[in-house]
Amino acid sequence: MKGFEELDKDELELPPYEREDGRAADELRTVAIEPGFIRSARGSVLIAMGNTRVICTASVDESVPGWMRAQNVPGGWLTAEYGMLPAATADRNRREVSAGKPGGRTMEIQRLIGRALRAVVDLEKLGRRQIYLDCDVIQADGGTRTASITGAYVALRLAVNHMRNTGLIKENPISEPLAAVSVGVVEKTPLLDLCYVEDSAAEVDMNVVMTASGKFIELQGTAEERPFSRDQLDAMLGLAEKGIGELLELQESVISASG
Amino acid sequence: MKGFEELDKDELELPPYEREDGRAADELRTVAIEPGFIRSARGSVLIAMGNTRVICTASVDESVPGWMRAQNVPGGWLTAEYGMLPAATADRNRREVSAGKPGGRTMEIQRLIGRALRAVVDLEKLGRRQIYLDCDVIQADGGTRTASITGAYVALRLAVNHMRNTGLIKENPISEPLAAVSVGVVEKTPLLDLCYVEDSAAEVDMNVVMTASGKFIELQGTAEERPFSRDQLDAMLGLAEKGIGELLELQESVISASG
Amino acid sequence: MKGFEELDKDELELPPYEREDGRAADELRTVAIEPGFIRSARGSVLIAMGNTRVICTASVDESVPGWMRAQNVPGGWLTAEYGMLPAATADRNRREVSAGKPGGRTMEIQRLIGRALRAVVDLEKLGRRQIYLDCDVIQADGGTRTASITGAYVALRLAVNHMRNTGLIKENPISEPLAAVSVGVVEKTPLLDLCYVEDSAAEVDMNVVMTASGKFIELQGTAEERPFSRDQLDAMLGLAEKGIGELLELQESVISASG
Amino acid sequence: MKGFEELDKDELELPPYEREDGRAADELRTVAIEPGFIRSARGSVLIAMGNTRVICTASVDESVPGWMRAQNVPGGWLTAEYGMLPAATADRNRREVSAGKPGGRTMEIQRLIGRALRAVVDLEKLGRRQIYLDCDVIQADGGTRTASITGAYVALRLAVNHMRNTGLIKENPISEPLAAVSVGVVEKTPLLDLCYVEDSAAEVDMNVVMTASGKFIELQGTAEERPFSRDQLDAMLGLAEKGIGELLELQESVISASG
Amino acid sequence: MKGFEELDKDELELPPYEREDGRAADELRTVAIEPGFIRSARGSVLIAMGNTRVICTASVDESVPGWMRAQNVPGGWLTAEYGMLPAATADRNRREVSAGKPGGRTMEIQRLIGRALRAVVDLEKLGRRQIYLDCDVIQADGGTRTASITGAYVALRLAVNHMRNTGLIKENPISEPLAAVSVGVVEKTPLLDLCYVEDSAAEVDMNVVMTASGKFIELQGTAEERPFSRDQLDAMLGLAEKGIGELLELQESVISASG
Amino acid sequence: MKGFEELDKDELELPPYEREDGRAADELRTVAIEPGFIRSARGSVLIAMGNTRVICTASVDESVPGWMRAQNVPGGWLTAEYGMLPAATADRNRREVSAGKPGGRTMEIQRLIGRALRAVVDLEKLGRRQIYLDCDVIQADGGTRTASITGAYVALRLAVNHMRNTGLIKENPISEPLAAVSVGVVEKTPLLDLCYVEDSAAEVDMNVVMTASGKFIELQGTAEERPFSRDQLDAMLGLAEKGIGELLELQESVISASG
Repeated sequence: MKGFEELDKDELELPPYEREDGRAADELRTVAIEPGFIRSARGSVLIAMGNTRVICTASVDESVPGWMRAQNVPGGWLTAEYGMLPAATADRNRREVSAGKPGGRTMEIQRLIGRALRAVVDLEKLGRRQIYLDCDVIQADGGTRTASITGAYVALRLAVNHMRNTGLIKENPISEPLAAVSVGVVEKTPLLDLCYVEDSAAEVDMNVVMTASGKFIELQGTAEERPFSRDQLDAMLGLAEKGIGELLELQESVISASG
Repeated sequence: MKGFEELDKDELELPPYEREDGRAADELRTVAIEPGFIRSARGSVLIAMGNTRVICTASVDESVPGWMRAQNVPGGWLTAEYGMLPAATADRNRREVSAGKPGGRTMEIQRLIGRALRAVVDLEKLGRRQIYLDCDVIQADGGTRTASITGAYVALRLAVNHMRNTGLIKENPISEPLAAVSVGVVEKTPLLDLCYVEDSAAEVDMNVVMTASGKFIELQGTAEERPFSRDQLDAMLGLAEKGIGELLELQESVISASG
Repeated sequence: MKGFEELDKDELELPPYEREDGRAADELRTVAIEPGFIRSARGSVLIAMGNTRVICTASVDESVPGWMRAQNVPGGWLTAEYGMLPAATADRNRREVSAGKPGGRTMEIQRLIGRALRAVVDLEKLGRRQIYLDCDVIQADGGTRTASITGAYVALRLAVNHMRNTGLIKENPISEPLAAVSVGVVEKTPLLDLCYVEDSAAEVDMNVVMTASGKFIELQGTAEERPFSRDQLDAMLGLAEKGIGELLELQESVISASG
Repeated sequence: MKGFEELDKDELELPPYEREDGRAADELRTVAIEPGFIRSARGSVLIAMGNTRVICTASVDESVPGWMRAQNVPGGWLTAEYGMLPAATADRNRREVSAGKPGGRTMEIQRLIGRALRAVVDLEKLGRRQIYLDCDVIQADGGTRTASITGAYVALRLAVNHMRNTGLIKENPISEPLAAVSVGVVEKTPLLDLCYVEDSAAEVDMNVVMTASGKFIELQGTAEERPFSRDQLDAMLGLAEKGIGELLELQESVISASG
Repeated sequence: MKGFEELDKDELELPPYEREDGRAADELRTVAIEPGFIRSARGSVLIAMGNTRVICTASVDESVPGWMRAQNVPGGWLTAEYGMLPAATADRNRREVSAGKPGGRTMEIQRLIGRALRAVVDLEKLGRRQIYLDCDVIQADGGTRTASITGAYVALRLAVNHMRNTGLIKENPISEPLAAVSVGVVEKTPLLDLCYVEDSAAEVDMNVVMTASGKFIELQGTAEERPFSRDQLDAMLGLAEKGIGELLELQESVISASG
Repeated sequence: MKGFEELDKDELELPPYEREDGRAADELRTVAIEPGFIRSARGSVLIAMGNTRVICTASVDESVPGWMRAQNVPGGWLTAEYGMLPAATADRNRREVSAGKPGGRTMEIQRLIGRALRAVVDLEKLGRRQIYLDCDVIQADGGTRTASITGAYVALRLAVNHMRNTGLIKENPISEPLAAVSVGVVEKTPLLDLCYVEDSAAEVDMNVVMTASGKFIELQGTAEERPFSRDQLDAMLGLAEKGIGELLELQESVISASG
């Protein structure tokens, strides 16, 4: 076929791109997970990835959604909701309740979080109940959806541990750990864990959710500025794998300490 | 007029009512105000009154509402919004955005917060801008609206101080400090600062907003179980005055330390 | 604490303030209550307080709200709704259905009306049914919420009388009469029953709901322009007591005549 | 074509059908029009046709709708809105604001009222302003949309007279008088001005809006139970013409007396 | 009565009005009905009347609406919904879902379609199920509501035939065929089947729904520019009868061929 | 880390999985693109991929969105909207306008379509206008979002060609062709272009948008049943590349023929 642009040969040569905060290209921001942040929730954390901070809670509702009853679907359910405080961004963002409905971005994100977590949960083992994972961003500096997934996993684990300790459920419904991170390409350099400024400048933006066994749960890559090549995809997947490995370790240490 | 109930003579004799947490009838819960909790906001606090915890932020928008421009109202504006995380209550409360609109209780509360704070602000001195006070409850154990007002005042002061330090505004637009507290009558005993359990059992529930000069900004008393007498009103106002005095002192010490 | 405004000593000296319509400071507007105004309702009145006119109806629904059934709450329920015809104000006000939801003011008012009336009704004695009190303002000249409460009480009494006459209920569920009035401070003068022009100029605005035994059901005072002192509060409560006494007499005479 | 039902030969023989209220088939219910019912409106009436009672107001807004400005449409505009008090029907009807939007029936009716009145108004002569005709049913016993049109015309005339008297407009924008009535077929008998019981039993229901010159503005006939023949159509149009003639006379006498 | 406009004597003399597309005044546009256009529907057509094209489908839901169950209404139900693709008009029309609710025009049309079709269906014979008739306009050039009715009738017949062939229902629930067409008056000339340009210029616009036996189901005439006389009404009804006769023939030939 | 499931060794051995319609694992369904399907749109197609059929239109609005004007963003804009006829699925799906808002799935899909197409369009070269791409599914049998993208590209090209032919724009704003296809894993077998039945049974579901130069625009992979390995990802990407190559050829032949 005629008229295509020539493939840009040097696209993957990494120039010494300087990140604003001095991080290496394959370096996560400072991550902190504070368990038990919301005492009224069955499981909760405040997760911080740099200046991005998200309150993640797991609440247990002793009934299942109407559609499950109507369709006689057995077992339990797990769903996620995502929100953002108005002051989480430097320019105050308007409450979605004022618009009368969640925006498209919110719905996309909360569907992603729920889908990802359901992929490692055996819903039958939950029993006839529903778990709500609420992720509320209190400061937003890029990567809020992946921080939400990483934090929600810990909140879910804490809630599940509580349910097992109190005999509410017998078997562990979680098949394996997962975590998520964003990767991207900025000025042709593949980068791990983009902050807001990097995200805004990115040519490609990808969110990766991976299990401890190194398999994919979700892969969402978007060309913001220019299409990306197979080589770039491979480079980003490598960065994601490294970052997720580190997040999985932190998650486990927090969960063990909360034991 | 015939058929009225006899006035219950002993109604005001205070029996030795035992509060669940051992507090005296005229004692506040443990109060803590953490300034600068949300870095993306111009002014912010995390206020805790016992297990009630509220994130209060003050954001500045460099334009005024459409109705002010349409009606050529001079000066600035100050408004408040109130929200609650789903997991703030032991039984998860549904996000209002799911219902498509803020509930009646939310609207009542945010109108109260905005009205109270506007009463001590000279809107002309704000300049042609709008301040948003967002109060988001992350744990709810009674008294969330009064905690919101007390916390929002500190967030506002921090934002105003920043605006004065950076020369955005010249004169102090705040006429005097204010704080708020709830009082009530439980089993005929007037109590200060009701927690959720006490609030649910209260015969009377009153919210009081007062200035440092000891005057009233708002007074909202409601007979939940039985009408209340003038004597009971007087007893509750006395408790409120004491509690608000203590809150005003804490506010000032936090603001001074943030100076 | 430093920097407070000096208490304004002469604040309570009443100057010979002239009301536009020539009323004394402690004088109600002309009040008229026309019973049976809406023939399709079980109980109804057209209440006029000066130029404020409200249609109040009591309708009986032979079922209880879903939340009562879901939570197994025994007895009946009573709720109120408030509306305003577009042409009730000189500048036509937009129908709330056009905005897709009741405004904050409407919700605040209808919650107040319902709460006030429930405070004098024994819901168990209503039986398994719900009473709707609809208050629709057809002309608005200040004090619509208090006129609504005063009128709704009569509509409720007429409906209850009908229910007792037809044997639907056996015992009187109403514990005692109530009425409501607004008071306020205009140019430092405490006034009874403010019309719209006075209300707009008021420094303080207070709505009082009181029973025939002289106790409070609701007390809602708001500093519109400046904080109010304890002395001003006392003066306003005195005016409210006088006005409510007169309204209670008129209510009883209308109800007796409708017997 | 095969299989059609045989035309029912005797369909138009009028048996001595007895109307519940003793009216002749071609007789209107008692009609009353009370002008000036809402003092805050520029023009208003309370119209009663039997037990159907509607408050009709005409309000003047000194600006035109956004779409007229956007599309540079010259002249003014006239629109109508229709509502019903919850207690207007024996079984309380739910406020439409609770559903978040006007129902299909309401929209259909208010579009009809607006279209009908615009047909006799020269919008250019209104000047750059908008007239709102609000029709709020306070008791509903059939024929509310036609009563609304008949009453709205009087409210409009009163408002226009006021505007001409005060010099706001120079020329009469109304080309000719109009009124409306319902007709129908009940048990094969064509009837004028159906009440609710008759309307519920009607085989055919028709609303007719006519001018003083005997021409049609709107004609809306619906077969509720069975298709109607050309003869039945003619009979109904004859009844409508008679009834509208009587309504036009009453309208004029009310307007003259209000002069 | 004084002041009426003189009747315009020559109003009905038909000048040799030239239609843009060369049609005679009593001539339909080219009509085509393509059965089975949507394979997922029980019955469906793509109907074209000139450049107006509508997809009409009949879907069968094996349950009845909640209100029928609540009120114990026996038999089945039939309802209609109407929509328009954004690109159906040369100036793209906004999706109604973006506005959060169907517009008044849409609700009026879908109520008309449903009412018209229900008039020839014996709902008891449908059994305990609901038929949805969806009419989605993919190109709009005038007369979309009448094309929808004409097409929906065929879709319904196809679905009914399928239901009878599969033994789902025993008796034919359709009492007789129907079709619909628009007529109007343009420059004093009565015309059949108006396209968009003619409709925009019409003084009178009427939609007629008629059965094969020549009786009326719906008659909706609106004076857009000037009131219309009895003579004009008669002329339009004559045109409608002719056009509907032709449409009924086409419908039957399509249904027979689909047999 | 301990406790992970063993990697399932034989996971990628492809058993001779039989597709219901007899296709090979790497075979597209029958694809047809009918250009000019909607005459009122600037560009349009009816695309069919097996039983999935989508109407795609490109409409041109000679103004830009409000947010672009407000933020002074230069150039034009391109947006997409997605819908589905109620009868597109065998079980009728409810219109989203009835729910008052687009569902999460719809918003996710239309955001994807818009983002994908914007990635190959130079918005500056569009001039100060907005292109709407409307994708309305009339039959749904899996892969509606990818069929929408593939079809929308052709509709866009037809509209752009028209704009260039009429001189509305000078330069070609499209940087390169794109198409989209779904791939997935069913019973461990990677498959191209899943129909609904296959999609429902899929362990992994991935949507791929690719340019003619073989680069990625969007990559969205979701583990529905079990996490997927890097090998499975590679196999799916290979299938997608093959399918998209074939779709790109068909697109070009349709566009050339429409020239």
